[in-house]
Parts: sequence; C-alpha cells; structure tokens
Amino acid sequence: MTEKLTRADCEAMDRADPLRGHRAAFTLPEGDIYLDGNSLGALPTAVIARLDRAVREEWGHGLIRSWNDADWYLAPQRAGAAIAGLIGAGAEEVIVCDSTSVNLYKVLMGALRRQAGRGTILSENGNFPTDTYVSQRVAEQTGTRLVTEDSGDILAAIARIGRDLAVLHLTHVNYKTGRVYDMAAITQAAQAQGGLVVWDLCHSAGTLPVDLNGCNADFAVGCGYKYLNGGPGAPAFVFVAGRHIADFWQPISGWHGHATPFAFGHDYAPDPGIARMLVGTAPQLGVLALEEALRVFETVDMADLRRKGQALGDLFIRLADQELSAHGFGLASPRDAAERGSQVSLTHSQGYAIMQAVIAKGVIGDFRAPDILRFGFTPLYIDEDDVARAVSVLGRIMDQGTWDRPEFKTRAAVT
Amino acid sequence: MTEKLTRADCEAMDRADPLRGHRAAFTLPEGDIYLDGNSLGALPTAVIARLDRAVREEWGHGLIRSWNDADWYLAPQRAGAAIAGLIGAGAEEVIVCDSTSVNLYKVLMGALRRQAGRGTILSENGNFPTDTYVSQRVAEQTGTRLVTEDSGDILAAIARIGRDLAVLHLTHVNYKTGRVYDMAAITQAAQAQGGLVVWDLCHSAGTLPVDLNGCNADFAVGCGYKYLNGGPGAPAFVFVAGRHIADFWQPISGWHGHATPFAFGHDYAPDPGIARMLVGTAPQLGVLALEEALRVFETVDMADLRRKGQALGDLFIRLADQELSAHGFGLASPRDAAERGSQVSLTHSQGYAIMQAVIAKGVIGDFRAPDILRFGFTPLYIDEDDVARAVSVLGRIMDQGTWDRPEFKTRAAVT
Repeated sequence: MTEKLTRADCEAMDRADPLRGHRAAFTLPEGDIYLDGNSLGALPTAVIARLDRAVREEWGHGLIRSWNDADWYLAPQRAGAAIAGLIGAGAEEVIVCDSTSVNLYKVLMGALRRQAGRGTILSENGNFPTDTYVSQRVAEQTGTRLVTEDSGDILAAIARIGRDLAVLHLTHVNYKTGRVYDMAAITQAAQAQGGLVVWDLCHSAGTLPVDLNGCNADFAVGCGYKYLNGGPGAPAFVFVAGRHIADFWQPISGWHGHATPFAFGHDYAPDPGIARMLVGTAPQLGVLALEEALRVFETVDMADLRRKGQALGDLFIRLADQELSAHGFGLASPRDAAERGSQVSLTHSQGYAIMQAVIAKGVIGDFRAPDILRFGFTPLYIDEDDVARAVSVLGRIMDQGTWDRPEFKTRAAVT
Repeated sequence: MTEKLTRADCEAMDRADPLRGHRAAFTLPEGDIYLDGNSLGALPTAVIARLDRAVREEWGHGLIRSWNDADWYLAPQRAGAAIAGLIGAGAEEVIVCDSTSVNLYKVLMGALRRQAGRGTILSENGNFPTDTYVSQRVAEQTGTRLVTEDSGDILAAIARIGRDLAVLHLTHVNYKTGRVYDMAAITQAAQAQGGLVVWDLCHSAGTLPVDLNGCNADFAVGCGYKYLNGGPGAPAFVFVAGRHIADFWQPISGWHGHATPFAFGHDYAPDPGIARMLVGTAPQLGVLALEEALRVFETVDMADLRRKGQALGDLFIRLADQELSAHGFGLASPRDAAERGSQVSLTHSQGYAIMQAVIAKGVIGDFRAPDILRFGFTPLYIDEDDVARAVSVLGRIMDQGTWDRPEFKTRAAVT
C-alpha cells in the first residue's frame, strides 16, 4: 500500500461498516477516543436502567424474594450461556462466577488432579502476570513444576516435555502484543502427549470468534469486563468441556456448587453440571450488569466483528507507518492481522510519558511496563475515523514534543 | 413477665429507641415487615445514588481512568477498614474481596500450612453448609481430618484432640438457631492447645459487637450482604491478625495480591500487608455499594445496636409465648438474649407452608430445612411495632389455618 490514506478515506470506510449501528448502544465520553476496551469495556447504555431496576426494585422492594421472583438465582447460568455462544461452547459448559484468577485456580487444580504421574505445567513467558502467579503457586501445591517458554517455542516445548506434560496453560491473545495462538494446532499437539489444555480468553472473548469445541479445548477461563463490557471487576467465566464436567473435581467446594444447596445437608455433593464450578453467592449486581451487557452481542455477527477489528488494526499500523516513522516507535504486535487480536501495541523508550500526554489529549490507551503503548480497537464502538484521529493526535504530540513535560514524565504509583 | 404486652406498650418502646432515626436511611418495601436482613440486608437509600454515579460517571465517562481518578483501586481497603471498626480489628487487618467461601478457603489452607504435624480441623455439626463443605475439601487437600461436634461439645472436643488440633473453625452466630459462641473462651482454649482459630462472622458483623483482637482471634471471614447491607452477593471480607500477616501464605496467588501488580513482573511476591489476601480484580460495583452501605454505621453505637437487637428478640419470644402457644411451635434459639444473635428461630413440623403463608401476608422471614422458621431483627431498620405486627400476622394465620392451603404446601425447588 503506497498510496497515502486521507481522513476522507477513513470516513468512507466508516460509512461502509456493517457494525456501525452498534456504537449507539454505548455511552461514551464526549470528545474522547476510547482505545482501552481491552482493559475496561465501555458502558452499554442499557446497563444503566438494568442496574437501576436491580437496585431499586429487585433489591429494595423484592429483597430476598428476588432470588426467585427476579430470577437472580440462575443469572450465572444465563450469562454463561450467552458467553458460550461467543466462544464456541455449549450453553451448559460455561458459567459466570468469581474472578478470572480464582477460576483459573479451580481449573488448574482440578486438571492437575486428573494427571497423576505427570509433572509439568507448561505456560508462556510473558503470559499475563496473574496467570503466571496462579500457576506458580498451583505448582507449589501440587508438586509439579511450571515451565515457561517464549510464545514461538511452545510447540517445541510440548514435544520436549512429552508424556510429562500435565497441563498446558496459555492465554489465547497476549495482553501486551496482541499475538494470537493457533488454538487448534496447539491444543492438538498438547493432547497428543496426553496433556490437558487450559485457555485464558480474557483478550479474545467478545472480539474474535473462538471455537473451543471445534478445537477440542479442555478448559477455559475469561474476563467479563474487557470486550464483554460487563463493568469494572465484572465477574468472570469458566468453561469445562462437556466430556469432563460430570467427574470434574474442583478445590473450592462452596455451597452454590452443591447439587442441592438449599437442602442444607452436611456433606458436599457437587452439582452434576457446570454449576459445580460455583463457590459462594454470586456477585449479583455484577452478574446482572454483565447479563445485560451481553445482549449487545445478540445482533452481532462475530465474523463481521473480527473483520472490522482486523481492519482497524491494519489501518492503525498503516497510519502509524505513515505519520510516526520519524519518532522511534516500534511495533510490538504482529503486522499480519490474522495473528493479531483487537489491539496494536507500539514500543517506545519514553512510552509512559507519551501515553500520559496522549491520554491528556483525550485518546485513551494504556501503558504496560517497560515500554508498551497499547491501543485497543473494540469493533463495537470504535470506528475508522477514531483510529485516524488517534494517530493524528499521537503524531502532533510527537512533532511538538509536548510529551516531554515534567507532568507526563512522573510515573504514577498505580497505572 | 406475667403482665400481658399490648400494642401500645410496643409503640412506647419504639418511641424510646435511640436507633429509631436510622430506619430513615433505608428504602423498605411499603407495607411489608422485613425480617430477613440476616439473609439479605435492606437497601440503604444512599447506595442508589452511589451506584448510579459509579455506573454513569465513573464507568461511563471516566472509564479506565476511574481506577485512579475515582479511587476505585483502594476501595477494598477502605471498605475493609470500615468493617474493621465493627469487629474489633485494626484497619489494616481487614480487606473486602471475593465471597465468604473463597475467603474461608484461603484462610483455612493458609492456616493449615502453618500447622505441619497437626492433623485435625475441628468444626461444628450444623455449621453453615458452605463452611462445612469448604472444610471437607480442604481436609482432603491437606491430608487432615475434619471433626465436627455439637456446639455444646466444642470445649470438650478441643481438650480431647489436644495437640493434634490444627485449626478450629466456627461460625460465631449459628445461622439456624442464632446461638452465639463465647469467642474469647473458645479461642483461648483452642490456642492453649496450639490451635489456630478461624471465625465466620456472617451472622455477627454489623449486628453485634465483635472483638476479634480482644479475643486474640487468628483469622475471620464474613459476608457483606447480610447485616452490612452491601446488596445481593456483595463481596465478603477477610481478617488476618496483624501478627500473622507478614508471613501469611495463601493458596490463590492472583495479581491483585502482588506487592507491585502494575510492575507486571514474572514472579509472584505477595503484598506485605492485608492486600496479599486479594486475588483478581475487585468486583468494583459491589465493593462501591458495600462501601456506601457501611457509612450508615458511622453514627451507630454498636452497644445500642446490640441492646436493641436483644430487646427485639426478647419481645418476639414473649409475644410468641403469649400468642402462639396453642399452635405447636418450638423455640430453636436460646431464650437468654446474651446467648442469641439478632434472630429468633421457631420450629414447626409444617414450617415451610407456614412461612409461605406468612410471606404472602407481607411478613418476610425465611425457612431453613427441615423445620426452622427464621425471623431476623435487624436493629437498624426493624422496630418493636414491626415485631408486634409480625407475631400478630403469624397468630392470625395459625388461628385461621390459612397456611394449610395447597399453594403454601408445595415446596419450591429453590427457597
């Protein structure tokens, strides 16, 4: 592509976008360009009224009766079924509960229990930290070892570890680079050695088509507050392949995972289905917000979503090549859209200060240590014109050197 | 007390109540008498506006920036500090996170790890099921045995188990009977054998004064959605005594428990303080609702609250003796208010049908299998007149036999 892209070209792409109408379902801050839906998804407007009703009517007036009368009790199953449709799973294989980290713990501990005699958990260098941290302590508790390899070396590591592979645990789309694993090929390779495979879908669910059952995945976990737009700290989800559910053991045997929690019996007996993954009482306000947020996807074709996500990323890279080449940025994400999720990450030695300056101008991306500037392109509410404007803001900041001010160079304690 | 109590007597007590003004802080359903705050606390009216702001402004407009700009990040600490003030703990010993069941798992696994060579977890027959279920599977995972005894036999069991006692785990106020343990005496007896003590405060926090540090308790967990009024499935809390925090190991090493989560380092290193009990991202809407709900307690004297809770229970028992004696009820709660939390439980062989009929008349209690009718008296928003009216409704239903209708006798799948 040698022809220079203009703002008018971007506006034309935007007009041709089949997902264009979905932006109207979101409340977005006036004047900002929000490129951080990969960290916290935007607010689906319908959630405002749903939560207001949940608080005033269902909690305030229905009170305890709402567990039945407002159908609170099965909300984790309903939200799970809605997510299942986005990730190639059966409605009865997914349930919403706890956080991604807690769900990962349950799944890893349970998976390892089936793999007696095998000693290795394999994961990736540069996996999202909570994945690595949870795996480290799971390894400690189960007497296994955690081996981490660079993403390009996973297949070789599977072959090397061979029959000692207990569990392979990877994040489908890397949080820093946006690189996508070939789920089918890697799952098959690990299973060929007798390994079980756990996929973290935090950066995939709701933005690219995932086909867990088509890939014969064993387990998956993922987050409700990124591309699923469930709100800050929304509850997470967990997938257990149907073939594993009936005898899946999980370590945290709370009452909501019991077959008959309201019989108040003395002995734990897990629910026969996916509800055995539940532990305590569902964080009901969060589950209801997520359930409502997921309705946006009822009219979304995931193939359209993926195409648009790829197009937005391609456009960003093309414009960055065109506008920013003089300023020392690197590209941390794959250039090939097929290998990339819905984000593009740039590198820059002064990335932190630059991102602060960009945010101050209303382009909301984020920074990940040591040098990554992340820009997420959530296809439901970001369009080509946003991408063009974002690169233009970034270019202006770099041309003018305004990022190089003291207020942008101080590293905040919490980012 | 032989003199018959009249409705006018109850109204007079009500007028003399020092906590009378707090009822105005709650939104309660018109016409109902809500005696189930021990299961789901009522809605503090200020929570409506707080959540609306959290959703529209902080999520909708602030988006990812709100983790810093709206002080989301430290909300679990702030809510924990507010709860600490109600349970005799230091502000830096309590944090809000996860569910009671997950927190119990973390605390039990961590406590057992300190007790190498000791083989017994002691708990109570008739503990709340999730406590027993979690303990059962913890015992399985740690190679210990779980021993459960009747509440009156705990001290004898501690003496019998002796130096093999690893952890004593009890619920301070029993969910069925409302019976209160002597926390100081039992903690001391268990610690004299070298045991560690975990208290479940689900039915105590926010309704009776608890003095964890005065009793030298080791660990505690509790629920945000009962007497703390945090909303359905509100996040729970966990207490670790200051002397244990710095080297407390917990099994679920998620990124929010890391010393520097946003450094995104490869190796897990727990936060030096109570934040090491965190796992994943906080369920932010729930934490903010709970934080706001806790403000109600800023002007509450816990001794007043306890006195009123006891008076309401005494009144209910006295009126039940007076009005219901012909109808086959038993008293499952201690008659002595000093041994009873903020609930009174009656027994009746037809308890389920009777409770359904009572609820249909707007007196909201609950039923616990096999034969318990629970009536909770939340002193912040229940008064003497409510108690008198509730007993009168119950008496009328029994006198008229209206509970004995088919619609009340069918047992719902979920109660």
